[in-house]
Formats: sequence, C-alpha cells, structure tokens
Amino acid sequence: MGGDFAPQATVSGALLALAELDPAHTIQLVGATATIEAELARQTNGEHRELAGHRGRIEIIEAPDVIGMNDKPGAAIRGKPNSSMVVGLKLQVGGKSDAFVSAGNTGAQMAASVVVLRLHAGLKRPAIATVFPTAKQPVVVLDSGANVDCSAAELTQFAQLGAIYAEDVLGRTNPAVGLLNIGEESEKGNAAAKEAHQLLLAAGLNFIGNIEGRDLPGGACDRGPFDVVVCDGFVGNVVLKFYEAVAPFIIATLKKAGVDESQLGAALQHLDYSQYGGAPLLGVKGISIISHGKSSPKALKNALKVAARAVESRMDEHIGRRLQPASTATV
Amino acid sequence: MGGDFAPQATVSGALLALAELDPAHTIQLVGATATIEAELARQTNGEHRELAGHRGRIEIIEAPDVIGMNDKPGAAIRGKPNSSMVVGLKLQVGGKSDAFVSAGNTGAQMAASVVVLRLHAGLKRPAIATVFPTAKQPVVVLDSGANVDCSAAELTQFAQLGAIYAEDVLGRTNPAVGLLNIGEESEKGNAAAKEAHQLLLAAGLNFIGNIEGRDLPGGACDRGPFDVVVCDGFVGNVVLKFYEAVAPFIIATLKKAGVDESQLGAALQHLDYSQYGGAPLLGVKGISIISHGKSSPKALKNALKVAARAVESRMDEHIGRRLQPASTATV
Repeated sequence: MGGDFAPQATVSGALLALAELDPAHTIQLVGATATIEAELARQTNGEHRELAGHRGRIEIIEAPDVIGMNDKPGAAIRGKPNSSMVVGLKLQVGGKSDAFVSAGNTGAQMAASVVVLRLHAGLKRPAIATVFPTAKQPVVVLDSGANVDCSAAELTQFAQLGAIYAEDVLGRTNPAVGLLNIGEESEKGNAAAKEAHQLLLAAGLNFIGNIEGRDLPGGACDRGPFDVVVCDGFVGNVVLKFYEAVAPFIIATLKKAGVDESQLGAALQHLDYSQYGGAPLLGVKGISIISHGKSSPKALKNALKVAARAVESRMDEHIGRRLQPASTATV
Repeated sequence: MGGDFAPQATVSGALLALAELDPAHTIQLVGATATIEAELARQTNGEHRELAGHRGRIEIIEAPDVIGMNDKPGAAIRGKPNSSMVVGLKLQVGGKSDAFVSAGNTGAQMAASVVVLRLHAGLKRPAIATVFPTAKQPVVVLDSGANVDCSAAELTQFAQLGAIYAEDVLGRTNPAVGLLNIGEESEKGNAAAKEAHQLLLAAGLNFIGNIEGRDLPGGACDRGPFDVVVCDGFVGNVVLKFYEAVAPFIIATLKKAGVDESQLGAALQHLDYSQYGGAPLLGVKGISIISHGKSSPKALKNALKVAARAVESRMDEHIGRRLQPASTATV
C-alpha cells in the first residue's frame, strides 16, 4: 500500500519481477486484500495480460491499516500495528518471508525494521545503502540518510556492511572501500572522519583511503576505482539528493539549447535511478529494502530483484558473521 | 607567483582586469621582480599587445620566496616571510593595498590571511564563500572548506557573512538565506544544523529555512529562490567538488553518445566556474580572494573584478558593523 502510486505501481512491479525471478520465488502482497485483488485482476486482464500466468505465485496478506507518507514514524508503527509495513516485516520474524520491500514512508520503514527485525549484535544503528551511478560502475554509498551524527566506530561498521552488500548483491570481489572526505591525506576531515580513517586501516577491509567529492562521478580516485563510499547520513543525503537533481537540471538546460532529446535519453540512461530500484537498510536481521515513494513499476521490479539477490547470496548471514569481530574491535 | 600557471596566467589576468576595471584601480603584482617584468614585457609585446597601455597601472612588489602548492601552511608562512603570499597580504595592513587575490596554496592563504589581516571581533574562524551556478541565479555557498566541525553559532555567523557578500558583491537586495539540511522541517538534521536553524530564525536575516541537496541545482526551494546557502565546510567542500566534477562527466557521456560538442559548450556555459573567478575568505579584516590553483587568465581577471567590487561596496566595513550585535547575541 506504500508509495505515491500504490497499489498500481506495487502490483505491477510484483508481476514484472515474477516474470524475471527464479520460478521458485513467490511474492506476498501485504495490504487491504480487496483492493489488491481488484488491482491484480485489473492488471492481469489488462496491461499485464501476458503475466497472468504468474498470478499463482502471489499470496495476499491482509493488513487493513495504512501508514501515510506524512505520518510520524514512531506514532505510526505503535498506532497502526496492522499496517502493511508492520505486518509485512513481521512475516520475516515468523519465518514466512525472506525479505521486505516498500515504497512507503521511509522513516516508518526504518523504525519498524529496527523494532520488528532488530539489529545485529554490536550495531547501534542501521544504515541506508544507496546504489549510485558513476562513469565506471555503480557504487554503494552509505549511510545515505538514516544517521546524521555518526561516530568513527559507526562509520567503520557502515564500511563492513557496505562491503558485504557490494560482494553479495553487486557481485564485487574484495570490494574497494573509500571514506568520503575533503582531501586525500589521512589527517584531513572532521573529527569523526579522521578517526574513522585510522579505524578503517585496521578493519580488515580493502580500504583505499579518502575519496573526495570530485571522485564520485567517475567512480574512481587516484588509487583506482572504488565499490563502497562511507559517509555520515547528513553528507550522504545531501550529495545523493543533489545528484538526483543535477542530471535533470543539465538535461533541461541542454534541451532548451536545442540538443536532440532522444540522444540525451539514451546517453544518460545509466543515470536512471529506477534501474537500481531500492536502497537496503543494512544492519537489521533480515532484509528490508527502501524504495523511493515515487517508484515506478520498473523501480519496484528492480527492488524486488535486489531483495531476491540478497536472499540468494545469504547477505544477512554474512553480515552477522562479519560484525562479530568488528564489533568487538571497534565499538 | 601562485597557481599552476603562474606567472603567465596571473600576469595575463591582471592585464585583462585592468582593461575592464575603473581606470582609478591599479594592480600590484607581488613576487620575483625580474620574472614578473620579463613576463609583462613578453605579454605586452605579444598576445596582449593591445593592453600595453595599461602597463603603467601595474606596480611590481618584490617578494623573493615562493610557497609551493604542497607546502604545509603553518610552516610555509613562518618559514617564508618574504613570500608573495605574506608580503602581498601585509600591503593591506600598511594601507598600501585594498585587496589580495591569489591562485596559490589555499591552506597557506587562509592561514596567512588570518595571521596578517586578523579576524573581525566576535569571529572564531573565517569561511570560504564559493559562488555556485544554478538554473536561476548564482548563489553563495559557505563555508566551502575552511572549517570542518562547525558550531551552530559559527554557522549563524557564516550566514551573516554570506548575506553581506550577496548584497555587496552580487547586488542582491535583502538576500534570502537557506540552511543546507536533510529535510525542510526545523527538527531535521544533525545537532549543529538543528540548533543553527533556531539561531537563524532570530538572527535578523531573511532566513527562508532549510534547503535540501535537491534544491541546489535549481537555486530555489518550495519557499522561493535563495541567495545564500549555509553549511559546514565538510559538506560544503564535498558538494562543491562533486558539482565541479559532475558537469564534465555528463558532458563526456553526451559527447561519447554523439551529441554535438558546440551545442553542449554553449548550453552549459553558465556552469563554467571561471566566470566566478574566486572565492572570498570572509571574516578577515580586509579582502582575501582565493582562486583555484588551475585558474585561467579569465578566472583571475574575474577574481580581480570580485576584489574590486568588494572594495567599492565597502564590504569589509559592512561585515565589521554587522558582526557587532550578532557576535554578542550568538557566541
């Protein structure tokens, strides 16, 4: 029920995902049963007629309450225990589900994920990992908005989480981790970044040092390409929202100057956020993927595929294992 | 002598500026006299033959030492008292000069500016104000790298400094000031941003509230356009370096896709940093303009014009006056 275009976009995304996922996977749609059934019937008799064969792989789970996009997170999850958010996450605790995807209220999803799934031992806070398009390869930026004031130990944990995500979901071997900073020298940065640099050197990761704002679009610094970028959620959020807005701004400028629109679209396709689908909330015990409220069916399909890859690669188990020594060493 | 292309670019920038500045203005070139004289002679007999008439408005001030781009700031200004950086700034203290512009070592320029010019009463630190191109109007972003850990009181002082710069140098009336944050609600952000929001409401400025990363390319938020963006030097530096890199990245992508290069250049001209020339170090008693080490003659010409506007508008006096009540109220 979550997101600006629910249930149309969520139902459509589920059907599109089923067509591409391993046939063993099924999808649970959580929300008002009658509404979902009607939408499924409409789409499988309409625009997704060719996907009607996948209807049997969809289960509807009743959840009558809806958390609005502007509800306060804490109050919403306490006051609406039968919301699709809370009910959907609880399925994982009961072993009835492996992963949760939502385009609903991000704050409520974070809060409900921590309350329902709980955090891995040794972690104080989860991090939102956003996949960020670059000239070379997509990179994982975390935290991108869950935590505004981060300690060096927390930044180091984010690095551990991001490295596992890059390995398990993006398929990177020995992922290169960079610390977002204002200069490449280890003594640069604010207090947290300076201390985090030292902790990261000892964290058992492939830490390639500080990277700067100028290195982000290219996905590489002087020491080579990187897979994971660690920063606090304040700077991560500002940079990601800026990036989301700057490409459309440049495209609009070029269109106004008469540059051919079809050329622009094709050239900038890899900047299209919808192909990355969703941002996992890393650190919780289980899988919770946060999708943008304005997610298209394609974005939701890709978020569901990210969730499936996370499950198939046993990401959650790897995170639990990796955090054991790290938490003793750094917290 | 400062910058990657000195003395060619600096001498050329000075000649170009004199041709556009009020005839009452003169320029002092500070450095190794013989080198500067030879370069001036070469250019006024060569590519700038038509500007030879302005040679009489240039004075050469001897400064034999050169601070390298990689010298450590503190050691450089103590160890090289006869550098063009230190000698050039001292001219203002002696009343022999009104403003200083350099494309040299930024760290050394900041340190030398604070030591030689000193800070206005009530200020703890200066801020670098960078002019940032947007779809609407250029905006001033500060701090863009001088201070990595900022208190709310310091962010509020940056707002005061930026508002005066926007008025005096950019010609804005009652400049709108925004606080860079991760959401528009006043309770959003890290500890410093939340407290700064409250201080800014009481600072006697035209404070329009929080602005987000997504508002930057357009130069406007829901509440209208803004002239000044306040942030700490960590996030400011990351965002500005990212912005400098993202436009060339998108242009390269489009070229590869076969979009016509001449169209791109014309359309994106207003993203050209060289037209903004230099970033003032605000808060020192006097004028110190920091130019990029890679500054072209055009960028240096524009930095000199920014310096002249700051002097003509009596920016320094306005800053001293504005900080009196603010410093009592907020520090």
